Amino acid sequence: MSAVEPYDAVDVIRAKRDGHPVDEAALRWMIDAYTREYVTDAQMAAFAMAVLLNGMERDEIRVMTEAMIASGERMSFATLPKTTVDKHSTGGVGDKITLPLAPLVAAFGVAVPQLSGRGLGHTGGTLDKLESIPGWRAALTNDEMFAQLDSIGAVICAAGSGLAPADKRLYALRDVTGTVEAIPLIASSIMSKKIAEGTAALVLDVKYGSGAFMRDVDRARELARTMVALGTDSGVATTALLTDMNSPLGLAIGNANEVRESVEVLAGGGPADVVELTVALAREMLALAGQPDADVEAALADGRAMDVWRRMIIAQDGDPDAPLPKARETHTVTAPRDGYVTRLDALPFGVAAWRLGAGRARPQDPVVHAAGIDLHAKPGDRVAAGAPLFTLSAQDDARFARALDALEGSWEIGDAAPAASARVLERITA
Amino acid sequence: MSAVEPYDAVDVIRAKRDGHPVDEAALRWMIDAYTREYVTDAQMAAFAMAVLLNGMERDEIRVMTEAMIASGERMSFATLPKTTVDKHSTGGVGDKITLPLAPLVAAFGVAVPQLSGRGLGHTGGTLDKLESIPGWRAALTNDEMFAQLDSIGAVICAAGSGLAPADKRLYALRDVTGTVEAIPLIASSIMSKKIAEGTAALVLDVKYGSGAFMRDVDRARELARTMVALGTDSGVATTALLTDMNSPLGLAIGNANEVRESVEVLAGGGPADVVELTVALAREMLALAGQPDADVEAALADGRAMDVWRRMIIAQDGDPDAPLPKARETHTVTAPRDGYVTRLDALPFGVAAWRLGAGRARPQDPVVHAAGIDLHAKPGDRVAAGAPLFTLSAQDDARFARALDALEGSWEIGDAAPAASARVLERITA
Repeated sequence: MSAVEPYDAVDVIRAKRDGHPVDEAALRWMIDAYTREYVTDAQMAAFAMAVLLNGMERDEIRVMTEAMIASGERMSFATLPKTTVDKHSTGGVGDKITLPLAPLVAAFGVAVPQLSGRGLGHTGGTLDKLESIPGWRAALTNDEMFAQLDSIGAVICAAGSGLAPADKRLYALRDVTGTVEAIPLIASSIMSKKIAEGTAALVLDVKYGSGAFMRDVDRARELARTMVALGTDSGVATTALLTDMNSPLGLAIGNANEVRESVEVLAGGGPADVVELTVALAREMLALAGQPDADVEAALADGRAMDVWRRMIIAQDGDPDAPLPKARETHTVTAPRDGYVTRLDALPFGVAAWRLGAGRARPQDPVVHAAGIDLHAKPGDRVAAGAPLFTLSAQDDARFARALDALEGSWEIGDAAPAASARVLERITA
Repeated sequence: MSAVEPYDAVDVIRAKRDGHPVDEAALRWMIDAYTREYVTDAQMAAFAMAVLLNGMERDEIRVMTEAMIASGERMSFATLPKTTVDKHSTGGVGDKITLPLAPLVAAFGVAVPQLSGRGLGHTGGTLDKLESIPGWRAALTNDEMFAQLDSIGAVICAAGSGLAPADKRLYALRDVTGTVEAIPLIASSIMSKKIAEGTAALVLDVKYGSGAFMRDVDRARELARTMVALGTDSGVATTALLTDMNSPLGLAIGNANEVRESVEVLAGGGPADVVELTVALAREMLALAGQPDADVEAALADGRAMDVWRRMIIAQDGDPDAPLPKARETHTVTAPRDGYVTRLDALPFGVAAWRLGAGRARPQDPVVHAAGIDLHAKPGDRVAAGAPLFTLSAQDDARFARALDALEGSWEIGDAAPAASARVLERITA
């Protein structure tokens, strides 16, 4: 630590508190000093609340992102003999898209590095889902990751701790200080890691609706535009899809069941909405990789994507043919009347799956891979009285009561089918 | 700690963040849990910023004050054979009034317990100033304080840690998180300590202007009325003076130099504005103590107040005759032209003194007692080109540049003398 710091955290906080943009050098100092633990968690929490309530200008967000990147190491995929395209989702209920998507895009000769995280709260983590597969390991060395990208093209693994450490600390702080929902902070958090990772191109899946961080579509659009601008300004070709997260994605919510559903998609089947979103994102990624006309449906239908999936799982010591864990207890809820499913809210189903054991309350908790929810009908489907609507799975039937509490009032059966809606609302480009 | 807490800090923060009043029981829990260190500094900092930006309703302020009082012990001066009157200033630049005021009022047989604090942002702390005096100690036991009130009448000492401990922690936190300037937090902080302390009467010096927490006179009036109401409702006879803090009070800004100026006032001299305010506050205090006609000027002129000062300093192990610390380096700014000083803004002078070392950036930092600013002219004074305007003092001349930056544009010399103005604007009673 230097004897005299060039700025004072209180001045930086006050500027933002009073609605002024923060001086560029002062903002870079603030993030650096926070990484060095000179600026305290309390100071950063006050700053984060001021950012949430007063916002940040585009230049401030760029500077904040650059400062977070500068807090750690930068990777580069420039030595790979393939184009690299990454995908990031802002998170939703039943969002297993990374699993079929990465091998699908890799089937076209593109490198897809998916440095992923674990679940916290009601949204699942990609690594948690894949760890349902016996033997599969999330931790790879950089050399292993590069070798796998070169030979197979698709890697889903744990992000190293050296990337954007300032973001790591800030993310944990925001979670406990009511400052998660600030667009400038969400944007800089996501983009600092993606830019530091060194991908050449990036497609963002920005979700809105009851099961997303952004309930409101306008705020989700603002987040998407902010991130696309950030990526573009940093030389990463970036586009975003704005997608609906008002109801769960697909039929499976959990871990092992989401892997099962992903494999169905890779086998050319699977729920229509999962296929729709997988295909839409694959097209975006392949367009950025210079293959705008790639026939992605064909690669799902003819088994090329499945081949990459199997090689990817085996390369990380997983057995793609091993049976996935099954829960000891199940509880099925049936339709009380004939009619159409008119509503099925994502958030309560995410919370219920979490309470069944699919998610964790604290970072150090394990998840139960076999726990979760399988839907038998989705909004728009016709059901008969007594037909199964959804099945809860858990290792201990004591968990059903609190999961069912969460689901109270979260679904509806009516007389008329609701208007059909697509998952992808719009496309956002630089 | 109980196994299950009845509320979650994140929910409380979110309510205030989103502009809702906080539920009364949840707010009491928040303060209690902060005292128990279950709620963290980071969480309270985010809450404080949300309060600053979104405000609090009158009932919330009352609940917050009561919760802070309930966090610790309550004292009582009922056993003292003297009337007790306390004074509190909301803080300003060069505000050393407590130093001459406490002995002056005590000279009339009234007990004046001044439980004081350390520096908060750009305004100095009374204890920091007095600690310039070799040997003087701020920490007294309750027994020592009562004995000194009984025998001498005036005590200036550190507030015991048992009094409103929640406020103590919050006060230190606000200082370093840019959340000092919130009316609800200022009102509940001041009044929780004063009510818990058990004084029978209280005079508030609520400042407005560039060097005050409240720039705006209307906001200062709102703060004064809030506090007078809080005190009155709790059985403490409370009045307030609304006083001007647009320019520094007196000629000295710092620590040791403010002690020096206070001693001048006690010797019957000193700057006119310091004398004016000391006398006005002494009259208010003595009126509440049943002596509305006390001749306070006489007690300054004839040495009675000075006698009490000397006894008070000696009782706390200080040497009233010891030389005060002097800074190693000085830098004097001179008048660029003949004319009248038309403007000399309090805030930049406070910030500059702080940057010179007179104040602290973090609670654990020491202050430099010898650092500060001495004015040689005040608004209304005539100066000749080349005459000294003010002198900066610091232990390290590297500090002058940033202090001078703060002073850029903060003073003016014009052709005509500005209109004379009084320090005391109005009196606020229940």
